Amino acid sequence: MQYRVERDTMGEIQVLDDKYWGAQTQRSFENFKIGNEKMPKVLIYAFANLKKALAIVNNDLAKLDNEKKDAIIKACDEIIEGKFDDNFPLAIWQTGSGTQTNMNLNEVIANRATEILGGDFRKEKLIHPNDHVNMSQSSNDTFPTVMHIVCVEQIENKLIPSLDNLIAVFEQKVKEFKGIIKIGRTHLQDATPLTLSQEFSGYLSMLIHTRKQILLSLENLRELAIGGTAVGTGLNAYPELSQRVSEELTKIIGIKFVSNPNKFHALTSHDAIVFAHGALKALAANLMKIANDIRFLASGPRCGFGELILPENEPGSSIMPGKVNPTQCEALTMVAVQIMGNDVTIGFAASQGNFELNVFKPVIIYNFLQSLDLLSDAMNSFNIHCVEGIKPDKEKIAYHLNNSLMLVTALSPHIGYENAAKVAKNAYKKGISLKQSAMELGLISEKDFDRLINPSDMVNEI
Amino acid sequence: MQYRVERDTMGEIQVLDDKYWGAQTQRSFENFKIGNEKMPKVLIYAFANLKKALAIVNNDLAKLDNEKKDAIIKACDEIIEGKFDDNFPLAIWQTGSGTQTNMNLNEVIANRATEILGGDFRKEKLIHPNDHVNMSQSSNDTFPTVMHIVCVEQIENKLIPSLDNLIAVFEQKVKEFKGIIKIGRTHLQDATPLTLSQEFSGYLSMLIHTRKQILLSLENLRELAIGGTAVGTGLNAYPELSQRVSEELTKIIGIKFVSNPNKFHALTSHDAIVFAHGALKALAANLMKIANDIRFLASGPRCGFGELILPENEPGSSIMPGKVNPTQCEALTMVAVQIMGNDVTIGFAASQGNFELNVFKPVIIYNFLQSLDLLSDAMNSFNIHCVEGIKPDKEKIAYHLNNSLMLVTALSPHIGYENAAKVAKNAYKKGISLKQSAMELGLISEKDFDRLINPSDMVNEI
Amino acid sequence: MQYRVERDTMGEIQVLDDKYWGAQTQRSFENFKIGNEKMPKVLIYAFANLKKALAIVNNDLAKLDNEKKDAIIKACDEIIEGKFDDNFPLAIWQTGSGTQTNMNLNEVIANRATEILGGDFRKEKLIHPNDHVNMSQSSNDTFPTVMHIVCVEQIENKLIPSLDNLIAVFEQKVKEFKGIIKIGRTHLQDATPLTLSQEFSGYLSMLIHTRKQILLSLENLRELAIGGTAVGTGLNAYPELSQRVSEELTKIIGIKFVSNPNKFHALTSHDAIVFAHGALKALAANLMKIANDIRFLASGPRCGFGELILPENEPGSSIMPGKVNPTQCEALTMVAVQIMGNDVTIGFAASQGNFELNVFKPVIIYNFLQSLDLLSDAMNSFNIHCVEGIKPDKEKIAYHLNNSLMLVTALSPHIGYENAAKVAKNAYKKGISLKQSAMELGLISEKDFDRLINPSDMVNEI
Amino acid sequence: MQYRVERDTMGEIQVLDDKYWGAQTQRSFENFKIGNEKMPKVLIYAFANLKKALAIVNNDLAKLDNEKKDAIIKACDEIIEGKFDDNFPLAIWQTGSGTQTNMNLNEVIANRATEILGGDFRKEKLIHPNDHVNMSQSSNDTFPTVMHIVCVEQIENKLIPSLDNLIAVFEQKVKEFKGIIKIGRTHLQDATPLTLSQEFSGYLSMLIHTRKQILLSLENLRELAIGGTAVGTGLNAYPELSQRVSEELTKIIGIKFVSNPNKFHALTSHDAIVFAHGALKALAANLMKIANDIRFLASGPRCGFGELILPENEPGSSIMPGKVNPTQCEALTMVAVQIMGNDVTIGFAASQGNFELNVFKPVIIYNFLQSLDLLSDAMNSFNIHCVEGIKPDKEKIAYHLNNSLMLVTALSPHIGYENAAKVAKNAYKKGISLKQSAMELGLISEKDFDRLINPSDMVNEI
Repeated sequence: MQYRVERDTMGEIQVLDDKYWGAQTQRSFENFKIGNEKMPKVLIYAFANLKKALAIVNNDLAKLDNEKKDAIIKACDEIIEGKFDDNFPLAIWQTGSGTQTNMNLNEVIANRATEILGGDFRKEKLIHPNDHVNMSQSSNDTFPTVMHIVCVEQIENKLIPSLDNLIAVFEQKVKEFKGIIKIGRTHLQDATPLTLSQEFSGYLSMLIHTRKQILLSLENLRELAIGGTAVGTGLNAYPELSQRVSEELTKIIGIKFVSNPNKFHALTSHDAIVFAHGALKALAANLMKIANDIRFLASGPRCGFGELILPENEPGSSIMPGKVNPTQCEALTMVAVQIMGNDVTIGFAASQGNFELNVFKPVIIYNFLQSLDLLSDAMNSFNIHCVEGIKPDKEKIAYHLNNSLMLVTALSPHIGYENAAKVAKNAYKKGISLKQSAMELGLISEKDFDRLINPSDMVNEI
Repeated sequence: MQYRVERDTMGEIQVLDDKYWGAQTQRSFENFKIGNEKMPKVLIYAFANLKKALAIVNNDLAKLDNEKKDAIIKACDEIIEGKFDDNFPLAIWQTGSGTQTNMNLNEVIANRATEILGGDFRKEKLIHPNDHVNMSQSSNDTFPTVMHIVCVEQIENKLIPSLDNLIAVFEQKVKEFKGIIKIGRTHLQDATPLTLSQEFSGYLSMLIHTRKQILLSLENLRELAIGGTAVGTGLNAYPELSQRVSEELTKIIGIKFVSNPNKFHALTSHDAIVFAHGALKALAANLMKIANDIRFLASGPRCGFGELILPENEPGSSIMPGKVNPTQCEALTMVAVQIMGNDVTIGFAASQGNFELNVFKPVIIYNFLQSLDLLSDAMNSFNIHCVEGIKPDKEKIAYHLNNSLMLVTALSPHIGYENAAKVAKNAYKKGISLKQSAMELGLISEKDFDRLINPSDMVNEI
Repeated sequence: MQYRVERDTMGEIQVLDDKYWGAQTQRSFENFKIGNEKMPKVLIYAFANLKKALAIVNNDLAKLDNEKKDAIIKACDEIIEGKFDDNFPLAIWQTGSGTQTNMNLNEVIANRATEILGGDFRKEKLIHPNDHVNMSQSSNDTFPTVMHIVCVEQIENKLIPSLDNLIAVFEQKVKEFKGIIKIGRTHLQDATPLTLSQEFSGYLSMLIHTRKQILLSLENLRELAIGGTAVGTGLNAYPELSQRVSEELTKIIGIKFVSNPNKFHALTSHDAIVFAHGALKALAANLMKIANDIRFLASGPRCGFGELILPENEPGSSIMPGKVNPTQCEALTMVAVQIMGNDVTIGFAASQGNFELNVFKPVIIYNFLQSLDLLSDAMNSFNIHCVEGIKPDKEKIAYHLNNSLMLVTALSPHIGYENAAKVAKNAYKKGISLKQSAMELGLISEKDFDRLINPSDMVNEI
Repeated sequence: MQYRVERDTMGEIQVLDDKYWGAQTQRSFENFKIGNEKMPKVLIYAFANLKKALAIVNNDLAKLDNEKKDAIIKACDEIIEGKFDDNFPLAIWQTGSGTQTNMNLNEVIANRATEILGGDFRKEKLIHPNDHVNMSQSSNDTFPTVMHIVCVEQIENKLIPSLDNLIAVFEQKVKEFKGIIKIGRTHLQDATPLTLSQEFSGYLSMLIHTRKQILLSLENLRELAIGGTAVGTGLNAYPELSQRVSEELTKIIGIKFVSNPNKFHALTSHDAIVFAHGALKALAANLMKIANDIRFLASGPRCGFGELILPENEPGSSIMPGKVNPTQCEALTMVAVQIMGNDVTIGFAASQGNFELNVFKPVIIYNFLQSLDLLSDAMNSFNIHCVEGIKPDKEKIAYHLNNSLMLVTALSPHIGYENAAKVAKNAYKKGISLKQSAMELGLISEKDFDRLINPSDMVNEI
C-alpha cells in the first residue's frame, strides 16, 4: 500500500495515498480504535449539505471567492452522491464534539476541491480545510447542526412513511374486522365483549397518537446551532450567517430549518433530541403492546388463545417439525426494548454537558439514528410480513365469546352488581352457562335474560 | 379498637369502625402489605372530582336521582377538602388497574353519602358503592381518567409555576450579568470568551425550551378515558357520557379536558404519559447541566474555577470547619437522576399492556407524580436558596480572561489557522502571553494584534 | 409552639423546643423542602449503631472519656429502640454527602447525651455534636459506612428470608406437581410436553440462582469506609480505628463487616451497591417472568390458557360482577419494573462522583432500600396470597396435551425432520389428530406411532 | 448473479449460488430487513465450536457415524478460521430464539460437509442440517449455550486483559505519584490534602474491585443450556449429552464450562447475563468517574484546575488554533453512558420470557457483546493514549495546596471545630492566609500552628 504525508498543526503523519482525508482524520483513525460503530452515512451526507450551504453563504457574504465556492460545492455533491463513502472511516467513539468528523469532511472536501480546481492535493492545498471549508464555523456549531438536520430528515423521510404504511394497513384491518364480536380481556381474564375491529382500532389509535407526538417534537429539532461557532458568540462569523444558512439548507434539502435564537443553548443542550426520542419511546411502548397482543391472540395453534392466524413465513423450529412462530412480533419487540435502552443513553448523555459545550454528541446521534432505523425497518417488516396477512379464526373467536361469563355485566344495571356476581360465580362453580345459572337462581326472567345478554348490543360498534 | 362487619360479593370482613371504607378496601389493605408508597392525596382528590362530575352527568342522563346525586357530591367535596385523608390507606402496589383505589373511593363516598342522607352506613347502604357511586363506570376507565386529570393539574398548577419562577430569576441574572466578559470553556478547556450574561442566557433558553415541550405534551394528556367502562366499548354507559363528563370536569376543575376519541386506546396505552415524561426528562437533563455548571463555576474557594459565589446556607462539613458546599445543586442533580430512573419505569410499564387493559397504572402514576413533585420542589429550593443569590467573582473572572490563550482564535481569519496555532502553542510552551508570543514569532504587527485581540469585540453581546 | 435557639458556626436559629435536633438539622429542614421522601428509619438506626461503635472505639483509643462514651451509647440505644423516630425529619434531597443527616444524628445524640449526663441541652452542651459524637469522623466516611451497613442488614435480615420463604413454597409446588404432564410452549406456540413440576422447577431454579448472586454481591458491601474521614486519608483518626470499628459493628449488629483497604475508593465509588443492585435486577427480571407465566397460565377462566387456578382474594372488577384477577402477580410485576428504574438511577448516580467524594449518596441509598423493601414485601405477598394456593386445572391441562401437534417431535429421530413436519402440517391443515395424519400419510406404522408418541416418555422427569 | 434452488419444509426458494447457506437462512435474510446489526463473528465462531463438540459427542453416543462426524468437524474448523465469514448474513432482529442463526450454522455446515464428503450440495445433501448437524439439539438450547460461551470467552480473553493493562498502568502511576501532596476536593470544594498517588490509588482500587465483581459473575455464565433441547426436558437427546458437551467444549476452547443443572431455567432466564452486565455497569460507572476526574484535573491550561497534564494526541478544535482536548476521556465517558443504556435493554429483555422460552435472546447478546467490545477497546485506547502519559503539573499542585483553607481541619482536635471554623472563615473573608487568621484571632500559638498545619503529616501516605 502506498502512503503520502499529510500535516496539520501537530506535524506530519502518513495517510493511505488513495484516500482524500488528511492528517486530523488519520490521527483520529489511529487514536480511536474503539468498537465497529462508524459515523452513519446519512450523517456524512447531511454534513456535506451543510458545508455546501456554508460555501454559498460565505460567498454571498463576500468572504469566499466564486471559484473556491464552486469547487467546494462540487466536492460536497460528490460526497452526497456516495462517491466517497470509503473516505469517512471514523468511529462514533471519538472526541465528544464530533470535531474529528467535522475535520474529516473539511479535509476530504478540501483535497477533492483542490483536485477539482486542477491542483494536486498531495502537493499543495488550493483549498484549506480550516480556512476555507470550515470558514466561519466550528465543530461546536456544525456538528449539532448536522445532528438536527439528520434527525428531521430521517424522521420525515424514513420513519413517518414507514409509520404511515403501518397506519394504512391497520385502517384496512379495522374495516375488515368490523362485526366480528369477540370476548374482551382485562387482567388477562375474560371480560365483556368488543369487536375485533374495535380491538384493532385501539392499535390504530396508538399509532396515530404517537405519530402526532413525533411531529410535535420536530419543532425544536428544526432549530439549528450554526452561527454560534466556538462557544455560541458567533466569533469569526457574520451575524446574519445563521439565518442565511438555515434558509439555504431549507432550499437545498427541502425541509424547513430555522436558526436557534440562542446559540449557547444550541451547543450545550440536546433537549430537542431527548424530547423527540421520548416520542420514539412512546411509539416503541405502543408497538411492544401491539406485537405482544398479536402474538398472544395468535398463540396455539391448539393450546392458546388462537383467535388470530398469522402468515407463515419460515419454519419455526430446528427440532419441532411443522412449528410456526410469530417471528415478526419477536423482532419488533426486540427493537422496542432496544429503543428503551437507547432512550436512557440519550437522556444520560444529554445531561452531561459542561460550560459552553456538551461533549457527548456522537453517542447521542448514534443512538437516535439507530432508533430511527430500527423502528422504521421493523415497522415495515412487521407490516409486510405479518399485519397485512393477519386473519381471524372466527370459529375460535365465537367459541370463546359464547363461553364467557363476563357477559353477565350487562345484567348489572338491571339486577344489581351483587346479584349479577352471584349468577357469574354460580355458573363458574358449577361449570354451567350464564343462562342456566341465572334461571337456577331465579334472579331474572328468561325473556329479560335473552334480551339483555346479547353480545352485539354490548359492543357499540360505530 | 372497635370493628364492624362489611361485606362484598366475596363475603364478610372486619373493618375498623371509625373508617368509612368498606370490604374491598379492607381486602386490599390486608392483601397488599408492600412498601410504604400510598396513593397520593392529589390523586384521591382528582378521583373525588371525577366521581362528582359523574354524579352530575348520571343525574342529567336520568339514571341517578337528585337526592343521591347531592349526597354523593357533598361526600366528594368533603374528600377534596381533606376531611377523609385517613380513609385512603391503599398501597401503590395493588391491582394494576387501580380497581381497589376506585373501590376505596366508591366505598368511602357511598358510606359518607349514606350518612349525609341520614342513614347509618353501618347498618344499611342508602348509596351503593358499585350501583350508584360507580354508576356507568369501571375502574378501567376511571383510573386512567384520574391519571390524566392529576397529571395536567399538577403540571399546570405546580410544575409550571415553579419553572416560571426559575425562569424569572434567570431572566434577572441575564440582565444583571451583562458586560461581564469571561473565558469560555469547551471540553473543559479554555476557549474563546463570552459574557456571564450569555452563559446564563443559555440556561434560560434551556428552561424556556423545555417549558414549551412540557406544554406541547399536555395536549394528549387532556384526553380522557371516561365512558369506555370495562373494555372500551362503553357498556352500561350512555354514549354521550364521555363528552359530558369531560365538560363537567373542565367546569369543576377549571382545566380543559376532552373525551379521548378512541377508548380502546385510552385503556391500554399510556403514550401520553410516556411522552410527557420525556419532556420532564429533557428538563431534568437541562437542570443537571445547569446545576453542574453552577457548582463547578463556584468551585474553590481557592483551588477551583471560582468564578461564581453561591449563598452560604449551612455549614458544609462535619469535620472540615468553615467549609461551604453547593448543596442546592446537589439536591437538584440527585432529583435529576431520579427522574431518569422514573422515566425508565414509566416507559417499561407503559409497554406492558395486554389486550383491553394495561395493568401497570399505579406504578406509572406514582412515578410521574413523584417526578412532578421532586422537579417542582427542587426547582423552588434551588431558585430561592441558590440562584437568586449567585454573585460573580469579578476579580477571578478577569484573571482567567486575561490569561487565556484562546483569544488567539480572533487572529485566525487574518493570519490563518496554522499561524494562529503557532502563536498559541509557543505561548503555552514558554509560559508567556499571547502578545509576547505573537511578537516573538513576528506573525502580526503589534497594532493589528491590539486591534484584533479585544475580548469585548469577540462576544457579540446584544 | 415553643421554640428555643440553637447555634452552629453560621449563627443562631430557632428550633422547636420539644425536638432534640440542633441548628444544622434545622437549616437543612428549612432549606430542603423537596418531596416527601425522608431518610429511612432503618438507615437512622444503622447510623446510631455506627455512632455507638465509634464511641466505644474512641474510648478505647483514649480520646473519649468513659462518662461521655456511656452517655453517647445510651442515647444511641434509645434511638435504635425507636424513641426518637420523630427527631429525624430530613429529606433524601439534601446535600449529596448526607452530611446533614450525619449532623442530625450528632445533634440528637449530643443533646440527649447531655440530658443523660444531667445537663440541660437547651442551655449547655456537655457533649458536643462535632467534637464528641462525630469524633474521628466525617460525614464522608460515616455516611457511606452506614449505606453499606444498612444494605447488608436489610439483605440478610429482610430480603433473603423473604426469598427463602418463596423458595420453600416453590420447592413444595415442584413436589406437588410431579407427574402432571402438560404441553410446553415456546414463542407462545405449542411445543413439546413437560410436567408442571418441571415448569415450576424452572422458577425455583431462577430464585436459587439469583439468591446466590445476591450473596456473591454481599462481599464488597461488607467493606466499610469508616476511618477515611474527610477525603480518605484518615486525617484526625487513628490508623487502627477503621479496623476496630468494623469489628465492633460486627459484634454489635451480628453481621460481618471489614475495613475497606482503600478509603479513597470507599468515599468516591459505589460499585459495591451498583453490583448488588444488578443482582436485585436479575431477581426482578426473574420475578417478572414467573409472575407473567403464572397469570397467563391462569388466564380465563374460560377463554384463556386456564391451566392454573389462583386463589380468589378479592373482587376483581368494579363493573364486571364475579371477576377475579391475578392481582398479586400484578403488584409483583409493578414492583419489578420499579426495580428496573431504580437500577438506572443508582448506576447513573454512582457514575457522578468527582474528586474525593461522590455526592449522590442519599439518592443511591434511597433507591436501594426502596428496591429491598418492595422486593421483600412483594415476594411475601405473592407467596402468601398467590403461590401457596396455586392449583392445577388438570382437566384443561390434559385437554391441551392431547390436542397438541408438537408431540410429533418424538417422531423426528425415526422418520426424519421433514417427514415429521409433513405429519404435523397435514394434521393442522385438516384439523385432525397427529395419529390420523400419520396414518393417512403412511409414514409410520400404527404400532411405532403408539410406542413413540407417549408424552410420559418425552418429559424425562426425575 | 447465479442462483440455485434450496428447499425446506415450507418449499423451495432461490439462493445465491456461491453461498453455502440454505432455504431457512434465505427466508430470514429476506424477511428481516431490519437495521445493520448482524450476528457478531465471535458468536458465529462460538456456535461452530458448539456444533463441533456436538458432533463429537453424538458420535460417541453412537448416533452419528465417523464419516459424518469428521466432515462436520472439518466444516466447523473452517468456519472458525474465518473462511466462511460472508456466509452468515443474518440480522440481530430476527426470531427471538436465534433459530435462524442456528439454522444458518446448520445449513452452511451441512452443505460444506457434504462437499467435504465429495458430494455436491447443490444436488444432494449427504449431511442434513436438522437430522445431522442439529442432532440432539434445538435452537432453544444451542443459542443460549452459545450466548454463555461467547460471554465467558470475550470476558476472559478480551475484557480482562484490557482491564489488567489499565490496572498495571494505574499501579505504575500510584508509585510514580507518591509524595506529591495536593489539595483534596469534596463537593468540588477545597478539602483536606492527600497525595496524587492516593488519589490514583482510589482509581486503581475501583478497577480492582470491579474486576473481582466481573470474575464473580462468571460462575453462572459457565453453566450451559445444552441438552435441554426444545423445552428443557431433553427430548431427543441422551441424558448424559449435556455433561459430555460441556466437557468437550472445555477441552476445545480451553475455558471451563459446566452443565446447568436445571434446563428449564437455562432456556427461560438470562439472570446470569443480567448479573454479569451489572458488573460491567459498575465498571462503566467507575470509568466515568475516573475519566471525569482526569479531564477536570487537566482542565485549563490556564483557567481550570490544571493539576494534570495529558498527552496531546491531535488538534482539538477546527476553529480555535492550538487547542488540545481530553478526547480519550470523552470517548471513554461516551462508552460508559452507552453501557448504562445497554444495561437497561438487557434487563428489560431478560424479564420478558414466556413459558418455556425467552425470545429476546439476540437483542440480549448483541448488547452484551457491544458492551464488552466498547469497554475493552475504550480502556485500551484510554490507557495507551492518555493514562500512560499523564504528568502532574507540580507547580499548580503546590500553588493550590498552599492556598487552601481546609488545612484548618488539622486544628480541630486541638482548638475545637467551632474555633477552627472561625479561623477559616476569617481567612476567607479577609483574603488572608490561615496562619495570619489564626494569629489574628489568637486561638493558637504560632509554634502549635506550625506543628499542626503540616500537609505532609495530614496525608498518612503509606
